Amino acid sequence: MLHEKLNWRYATKKMDPSKPVTQDKVDRILEAIQLAPTSSGLQPFEVIVVTNPDVKAQLRDVAYGQAQVTDGSHVLVFAAWDNYTEARIDAVVDQLVAERGIPREAVSGYYDNLKSMVLPRSAEVNFEHAARQAYIAFGIGLTAAAFEEVDSTPMEGFDAAKVDEILGLRARGLRSVTLLPLGYRAADGDWLLGMKKVRKPMAELVSEVA
Amino acid sequence: MLHEKLNWRYATKKMDPSKPVTQDKVDRILEAIQLAPTSSGLQPFEVIVVTNPDVKAQLRDVAYGQAQVTDGSHVLVFAAWDNYTEARIDAVVDQLVAERGIPREAVSGYYDNLKSMVLPRSAEVNFEHAARQAYIAFGIGLTAAAFEEVDSTPMEGFDAAKVDEILGLRARGLRSVTLLPLGYRAADGDWLLGMKKVRKPMAELVSEVA
Repeated sequence: MLHEKLNWRYATKKMDPSKPVTQDKVDRILEAIQLAPTSSGLQPFEVIVVTNPDVKAQLRDVAYGQAQVTDGSHVLVFAAWDNYTEARIDAVVDQLVAERGIPREAVSGYYDNLKSMVLPRSAEVNFEHAARQAYIAFGIGLTAAAFEEVDSTPMEGFDAAKVDEILGLRARGLRSVTLLPLGYRAADGDWLLGMKKVRKPMAELVSEVA
Repeated sequence: MLHEKLNWRYATKKMDPSKPVTQDKVDRILEAIQLAPTSSGLQPFEVIVVTNPDVKAQLRDVAYGQAQVTDGSHVLVFAAWDNYTEARIDAVVDQLVAERGIPREAVSGYYDNLKSMVLPRSAEVNFEHAARQAYIAFGIGLTAAAFEEVDSTPMEGFDAAKVDEILGLRARGLRSVTLLPLGYRAADGDWLLGMKKVRKPMAELVSEVA
């Protein structure tokens, strides 16, 4: 089931602008992203869903003109925290304690230790760590799109600083890391659609220590 | 379907060492990892499957003693390329051209441009980029485990340099980034199992530009 979906999906090169993705499908993709596991449960990223045509056009301009950004009906922008801060970690602990109905002391040792590890690190190191967590959710998000039979294009080819500027991300303590346009493949306009999916043979990808 | 699986899974804290995962299930998890999309199709990582008890014990020792590393029957070690090189990129192009039966000229412009972008960068920047790709596969791998009803523990808490040493990864141009022990939950020994899965509310995770 999962493998069928992963085989069905591909990095769609041409989307049909006349076919928008319905909100219920977008919501289910976002719910899968919400369920992605992250380091210490921090979920150190946000997703900005862009449907505004003018903003999508601006994003396309800083993404080497890739047409999926405007032909897709929705563009998910994955933006990682620019740093870890005490306030951000405390907010995670607050929610955990409230939702599980446990005493703060049950988890404060763990999170104090986490703070002592990450707060002295540079913003850049922490951002890279947060970005990796966003990529877990990105992988699950593009898988979720396939389950909805929605096409998507995982995209790193864009000027992140300009995307941050267009969406005002830095003021929110965020930095864009990936884009995921959502839409439907334009079957007759996509050069990649007929191509074989190429993956490294298992013997090159996997080794065993038995 | 996907959401059920994502809700079923959790970062298993206690695995039952008497229940090994069967090879067919491990194989399907690895096949899902193989299908993960990566930047320019580079698949810049490898997965080392550790079942050897002595090696698992060594890994546990450098992973803060986390028992899932030895109680789980298999430990998947995700290791990213330590750098991009001309030879590594050429090997990707070779396979692409051979499997699609296309002339090299059809893709050489794209990959020449890629080389001109990544080869001048520092090894550290390229490793971070490769690590992000490994995280896409990591997210899909832990999802695949849930589809097999296999428990797993996404794990970053380990001394990567020591894992690299134990497995001889640096000599192979690899650096460990995550561990994923596979096994079956020990229902009565896992403090996390009865706990509510806590995730940020959608309103905090997602915003719209409509």
